[in-house]
Amino acid sequence: MTRRGFVLPGSLVLLSIAACQSAGPVALSEADRAAIEATSQAFLTAARAADWTAVAATYTEDAVLMPPNAPAVAGRSAIQAFFESLPPVTQFDLTSLEIEGRDDLAYVRGTYEMTMSGAGGLPVVDSGKYLEIRRRQADGSWLLHRDVFNSDLALPEPCVAG
Amino acid sequence: MTRRGFVLPGSLVLLSIAACQSAGPVALSEADRAAIEATSQAFLTAARAADWTAVAATYTEDAVLMPPNAPAVAGRSAIQAFFESLPPVTQFDLTSLEIEGRDDLAYVRGTYEMTMSGAGGLPVVDSGKYLEIRRRQADGSWLLHRDVFNSDLALPEPCVAG
Repeated sequence: MTRRGFVLPGSLVLLSIAACQSAGPVALSEADRAAIEATSQAFLTAARAADWTAVAATYTEDAVLMPPNAPAVAGRSAIQAFFESLPPVTQFDLTSLEIEGRDDLAYVRGTYEMTMSGAGGLPVVDSGKYLEIRRRQADGSWLLHRDVFNSDLALPEPCVAG
Repeated sequence: MTRRGFVLPGSLVLLSIAACQSAGPVALSEADRAAIEATSQAFLTAARAADWTAVAATYTEDAVLMPPNAPAVAGRSAIQAFFESLPPVTQFDLTSLEIEGRDDLAYVRGTYEMTMSGAGGLPVVDSGKYLEIRRRQADGSWLLHRDVFNSDLALPEPCVAG
């Protein structure tokens, strides 16, 4: 009887198994990085246009936004409502400092600068930093899954009754 | 001549290669999760004891701490100096809500409650949320690599000159 099959030397079989088992971390591909940056750009463009539906679409359905001086906001529709409740944004910039990830999980760290219309229409300028957790979706896009930011500016001095 | 080696049916060889290539994301092991939680506990114990050297040792050498209302702090020694500059902490609690990761990269999300001694020794209570990026080290420990937090409490009202 003839047994049909490949004949692999034992050392090659062991090498193949070892290579597979010690493949190590799967770093982000160039396509992953491009898709992550595309979502950042979509967020920025939508936020500048005050298109909060499009901003919300850059988050996963079960995303959690963690804004400063407010409780965490869970879920895409609640995140959209949060952004809609903010004063008008007249200037907004993001600078990405770092993108790192493994497989379908990544983080993005960067800084922001923004100007909002405050009381009496006076501009309120803020600058700070952010950290996002991104998840790769079935279509290859990388949506925001966890998003936290805070200001670099010192707290206002508390009022002292006098 | 006898050729020494394993004989594998062709279909099994192809199956092995396919399984290796489509291995998919490598989720955290139970050991990874236990090590992540052990670092959280070490941080908490050290912070309660105001042992800022031990707190700093839970961060990677090139960690970045992103505290609210202050610029980012880069590097373990700068992080230690930052914690040493804070007012005395009289109560501190952490609650871990989520641990997720791939390979040697993970994130931890949770909430904190703390009381500090403010001006005149009056207690200042704060509660908020945090997001950490963790990296697995060669010894199997999972150190803090990026760490951002912010308060849930509303900003103090700005003083109005009158």
